[in-house]
Amino acid sequence: MTAPLLKPRDIAFQLYEVVDAESLTARPRFADYTRETFDAVLDTARGIATEHFAPHQKRNDTEEPRFENGGAVLNPEVKAAFAAYAESGLLAATHDAAIGGMQLPHTIATVAIAHFEAANIGTASYTLLTTGAANLIAVFGSPEQKERFLAPMLSGKFTGTMALTEPEAGSSLSDILTTATPNGTGAYNITGTKMWISGGDHEIAENIVHMVLARIAGAPAGVNGISLFIVPKRLIGDDGAVGALNNVKLAGLIHKMGWRGTTSCILNFGEAGPTVGYLVGEPHKGLIYMFHMMNEARIGVGRAAMAMSYRAYLYSLAYAHTRRQGRAPGERNPGRPPVPIIEHPDVRRMLLMQKATVEGALSLIIECARLVDEQETAPDEAERTRAKRLLDVLTPVAKSWPSSAGQDAISNAMQVLGGYGYAREYGVEQLYRDNRLNQIHEGTNGIQAIDLLGRKVMQENGASFTALVDCIRETIAGTSLDVGELSEALRAGVVRMVETTQLLVRAAAEGDPALALANASVYLDLVSRTVVAWLWLRQADTAARALARGASDADLAFYRGKLQAARYFFRWELTKTVTDGELLRRLDATTYEMANDWF
Amino acid sequence: MTAPLLKPRDIAFQLYEVVDAESLTARPRFADYTRETFDAVLDTARGIATEHFAPHQKRNDTEEPRFENGGAVLNPEVKAAFAAYAESGLLAATHDAAIGGMQLPHTIATVAIAHFEAANIGTASYTLLTTGAANLIAVFGSPEQKERFLAPMLSGKFTGTMALTEPEAGSSLSDILTTATPNGTGAYNITGTKMWISGGDHEIAENIVHMVLARIAGAPAGVNGISLFIVPKRLIGDDGAVGALNNVKLAGLIHKMGWRGTTSCILNFGEAGPTVGYLVGEPHKGLIYMFHMMNEARIGVGRAAMAMSYRAYLYSLAYAHTRRQGRAPGERNPGRPPVPIIEHPDVRRMLLMQKATVEGALSLIIECARLVDEQETAPDEAERTRAKRLLDVLTPVAKSWPSSAGQDAISNAMQVLGGYGYAREYGVEQLYRDNRLNQIHEGTNGIQAIDLLGRKVMQENGASFTALVDCIRETIAGTSLDVGELSEALRAGVVRMVETTQLLVRAAAEGDPALALANASVYLDLVSRTVVAWLWLRQADTAARALARGASDADLAFYRGKLQAARYFFRWELTKTVTDGELLRRLDATTYEMANDWF
Repeated sequence: MTAPLLKPRDIAFQLYEVVDAESLTARPRFADYTRETFDAVLDTARGIATEHFAPHQKRNDTEEPRFENGGAVLNPEVKAAFAAYAESGLLAATHDAAIGGMQLPHTIATVAIAHFEAANIGTASYTLLTTGAANLIAVFGSPEQKERFLAPMLSGKFTGTMALTEPEAGSSLSDILTTATPNGTGAYNITGTKMWISGGDHEIAENIVHMVLARIAGAPAGVNGISLFIVPKRLIGDDGAVGALNNVKLAGLIHKMGWRGTTSCILNFGEAGPTVGYLVGEPHKGLIYMFHMMNEARIGVGRAAMAMSYRAYLYSLAYAHTRRQGRAPGERNPGRPPVPIIEHPDVRRMLLMQKATVEGALSLIIECARLVDEQETAPDEAERTRAKRLLDVLTPVAKSWPSSAGQDAISNAMQVLGGYGYAREYGVEQLYRDNRLNQIHEGTNGIQAIDLLGRKVMQENGASFTALVDCIRETIAGTSLDVGELSEALRAGVVRMVETTQLLVRAAAEGDPALALANASVYLDLVSRTVVAWLWLRQADTAARALARGASDADLAFYRGKLQAARYFFRWELTKTVTDGELLRRLDATTYEMANDWF
Repeated sequence: MTAPLLKPRDIAFQLYEVVDAESLTARPRFADYTRETFDAVLDTARGIATEHFAPHQKRNDTEEPRFENGGAVLNPEVKAAFAAYAESGLLAATHDAAIGGMQLPHTIATVAIAHFEAANIGTASYTLLTTGAANLIAVFGSPEQKERFLAPMLSGKFTGTMALTEPEAGSSLSDILTTATPNGTGAYNITGTKMWISGGDHEIAENIVHMVLARIAGAPAGVNGISLFIVPKRLIGDDGAVGALNNVKLAGLIHKMGWRGTTSCILNFGEAGPTVGYLVGEPHKGLIYMFHMMNEARIGVGRAAMAMSYRAYLYSLAYAHTRRQGRAPGERNPGRPPVPIIEHPDVRRMLLMQKATVEGALSLIIECARLVDEQETAPDEAERTRAKRLLDVLTPVAKSWPSSAGQDAISNAMQVLGGYGYAREYGVEQLYRDNRLNQIHEGTNGIQAIDLLGRKVMQENGASFTALVDCIRETIAGTSLDVGELSEALRAGVVRMVETTQLLVRAAAEGDPALALANASVYLDLVSRTVVAWLWLRQADTAARALARGASDADLAFYRGKLQAARYFFRWELTKTVTDGELLRRLDATTYEMANDWF
């Protein structure tokens, strides 16, 4: 059974009908593009993902990287796929043309990249990590660092990693112990252990550039004493040639439930001999630099979750159309042939839930990418500021909601397949295992909740939150009467979100901040459902207007499906914010008051 | 890190304080037992589960059964564990002493067995399947069949399986194609293919007794043409000796996401030569016989889910007490040591959710077992009938709720561990994979929902449903004032459940049954949360009364924890029935109206 990775008609709808992505071509930075060249990029991505990534997705899972002779050995297809990706230029999709980039809008790039995540997250990770590490050097690195490290990363000659966490400092980066000591050459010797380092070792490229957080000896305690270093696996000579090993020792691989194609490494620095690191930017600003990149990394997690759950949806949909089992309610004649299971209302429920989730998630990811483009290229300063504020408040939602709602969606895909869904011979269970990581990495969803309530909605006196509310109300005001039921429901949903937020912010300021934060996860749920409802209203309004104008038969079905999925989201999901809102409004103290010895 | 399988204090509370299990010893059938001997059985079970089952739980996962020389090869520990279990007598825990059984109440047996499911479901399955198959022969088999097959199954000389499903007939048993042809000796030749047969092949016992559904040639189509057969792996001589192979051919093993220790087999009958089967009971009554056992099998699934999620809870609780990370909100001094993560409110939330779920599930499973005892041994006929009715309506809840809410609980356990939760080096991710099957097998949870709404609440003119409502109201009426908040909330919850049920039943009778059934899953959610709230109210009331009487320090904490978990369930879970009730009341048609080509 074959199913597409993502649905092309939906992508075209969301990019060009809902969000006018074509209008970006009017901006100087994207002037060389047209809708046709955007589509050509998407086609290329879809082609490479299908030909070079999808075929070894299962092998990545069944034959995971091995620890041999001190290094990690990967399946050979990973290197070939990485090379094909690098060859396409996508490693530098959004970078300046001046440094070899494609200068593509994020709006288009994010959809292109999602195909690789849907096809094979284990292999796609190496490309994503490389781009992420490269971004750090592009923004904060010295000209020399850019020449030595950034250029070969963007061309795929080197890969990159983010080396933040340690065995005793996972979510709490302020406690990292890795140290950096000046070695007299202007560089530093790095000593310590990093853990959970994705892509931390392999031989798919000539070199690996680790972006390492460490404390310079004598630095202040806590977050203000952390610096960022470039630590290459192999040293680079003055001529740019890759030289000797830099004593980054692979101490072991962690074996994960899913996402197995990507090595998760324990790395020791300075154990087998000196490990040289190069300071990026100024001392003690490492965490600030990292946070500069955090929005992008976190939205990337949400995108991966969207891509995996989207693929599971299409897989279970194709299965439900072909698998025959049981008969319609009321059919008493056992001689009649069984019906395709999509005919059973409970199966349709599980498919519609998936559709509402994954297409809602795609909408959320595209919106965030569009805001990155606005932040970087909007002609107007106020627009750029507004985009940044929206992005700040949407990031915890974009990271967490696709990962948790997406897991529920994949669970429904599995349920549609029944026993086959649970069998490794079929395609769903791997996605169920792979996606589960998205609720954990780049800050657990619990940490996203605290980030949203404890930081983002409060920052600049609530300016980010206000920007979001204004934005949603603008959408509501502009919708057609055909989606009146949805507009009305969202209007009430926004009031609920605003009142809840004000109450919690006041409670944190005047009372015990810990009590206000105790229900942060419920608050994140409430905001997430409201935000996704907003994005579904936008889709529904676009579909309703298209229907009003008249559409081809295929498009009729497509737009009606959009409207029905929107209705589903409002009637089945947005309604849950009522209960959540009540819990938050009474500052529920049930978990807060639970004593440790009562468990 | 070690954590107990289940919490002994909670078991004692639920068995002896909430449900007066000791009173069962007053019944003739259980007259040889005392609370001390009940506890001795539980201790034995805990001991064998800990010593013989838990140690190879992980090996069952990493080294799954292999298909070699036409048979399944298991890890050697499985055979030893099965033997230890058989030796303890638990295979015949609830059977009559006359046939070698322990004649134990189900209430006690179910808790004893749960320890094995918590310790190692892969190995425990062989014991459970054997008992289940044995039960069928005990009730419906002929004296000769009991002598040849039942006796060696109860002693562990033979194992058993349930061979119902086929590649094209999973949930729809009426479509099975396996046929039985009289072979002139009074027996039948069986031809066909069965799939997903757990325990379908291995060498841990001398023989395997498959309970096979098949159609006798010429039988009517549909469910009324299915008969039940005993099909042994090896034929039995007239002297009872195990003889030649019976041509039950292992065609392959299915590789599952979890639950890997248990072989899941494709079996071919009559392919390599004649496969002999012995008719159980009368022709064409196979499905009726099977359904007679279905309640028990389905409650068994719920019990396994409870056991797995209970173990994950205790594991994450132990982790949260020892793992240090981050600081309390408001602590600005990075020099202070990190706190155990149980101090973080969001971690406490995830632990309390787990506690409320798994202890609620244990309560549900004990209640069902108690009802089986009532059904079988209550002195009064009306009591026996009442128990049967309650059991009928509670079965779909007992099967589905622990499996789905339990999965969410295990997901929270994983989240508490963060990256470690996702690593195979730790104990949570296997439980997450193992438990997921419980939402699928023995009838998917969607099928449970249809069973509840389309059959159970309607049967005997609503007698089962009425029995449940009466029972809950009786509990409410008897609670102390100390749990007034909870009683009031449940009183409203019951009204909601009753009104919703009446409306749906009427809609199904007067309107389109498919529309009424389209939201069956939401209805199952609503009933499940109401039922578990009822059982939590009973626990809370018991705890409140104990506190009022005065308790030791350790018991003080224990009872307060019970009260807080009950509050959590009412405030965070029962409240969700409001939204679900509204959706049901308006006969939401969103999924029903979704057309196939709109996806």
